[in-house]
Amino acid sequence: MSLRWYTVVVDCHDVTAQSRWWAAVLGWQIGYEADDEVVLAPPHALDPDRHVPRAERGPGLIFVPVPEGKTLKNRLHIDLAPAREDDQETEVRRLESLGARRIDIGQGDVTWIVLADPEGNEFCVLSPRD
Amino acid sequence: MSLRWYTVVVDCHDVTAQSRWWAAVLGWQIGYEADDEVVLAPPHALDPDRHVPRAERGPGLIFVPVPEGKTLKNRLHIDLAPAREDDQETEVRRLESLGARRIDIGQGDVTWIVLADPEGNEFCVLSPRD
Repeated sequence: MSLRWYTVVVDCHDVTAQSRWWAAVLGWQIGYEADDEVVLAPPHALDPDRHVPRAERGPGLIFVPVPEGKTLKNRLHIDLAPAREDDQETEVRRLESLGARRIDIGQGDVTWIVLADPEGNEFCVLSPRD
Repeated sequence: MSLRWYTVVVDCHDVTAQSRWWAAVLGWQIGYEADDEVVLAPPHALDPDRHVPRAERGPGLIFVPVPEGKTLKNRLHIDLAPAREDDQETEVRRLESLGARRIDIGQGDVTWIVLADPEGNEFCVLSPRD
């Protein structure tokens, strides 16, 4: 018996916009698209026959529409990390140019930068790591 | 320039209990533990020198304490998938024996089973896939 972590599902107001936005952030590709669902995966993880993430490459991201808006800080959020040779501030400026906003959720003086995506979902850009 | 998806961070009431619970669900290991943070990763993904997930293996899970409780349906949730040879209902019964609850969030007649973890975070067990 075993279970694998297959995806994180993100509730959205605008599935098309949100999926394109996160694809640009991560450099990922759309593996499947319908009115009520867009699946993203890393380019190397897409199974050419089935358009879903391969097991050994970790989870994908799925964007689905919901009627309700976001009202509170999310209890799950995504952390992103620049590669060791990249610069945290450069990456954050790239995300800001895409439409991310720096936000204060009471994080204080920390090594990571807290941002919100275009629908207000909190996420962080960590210090560089491998 | 590049960013990788490093972790999903899960806000918790009880970091110790939640991290052990998800480790049991996924068969993952604790890579780092402190009072204010527990990091989980798949066994094959842990870097023996640094106790963090290796880049090519996808994100880990980090559990952090927060003062506020859960009040609404999460806008991000995790989907789990049994392997092709496994049985969805058997896996769900295993999770129920660990303390998961089947919940109705209006999903209707779907191929996945909607559950809540011990702190009420919604997640789904999909039909089996590779």
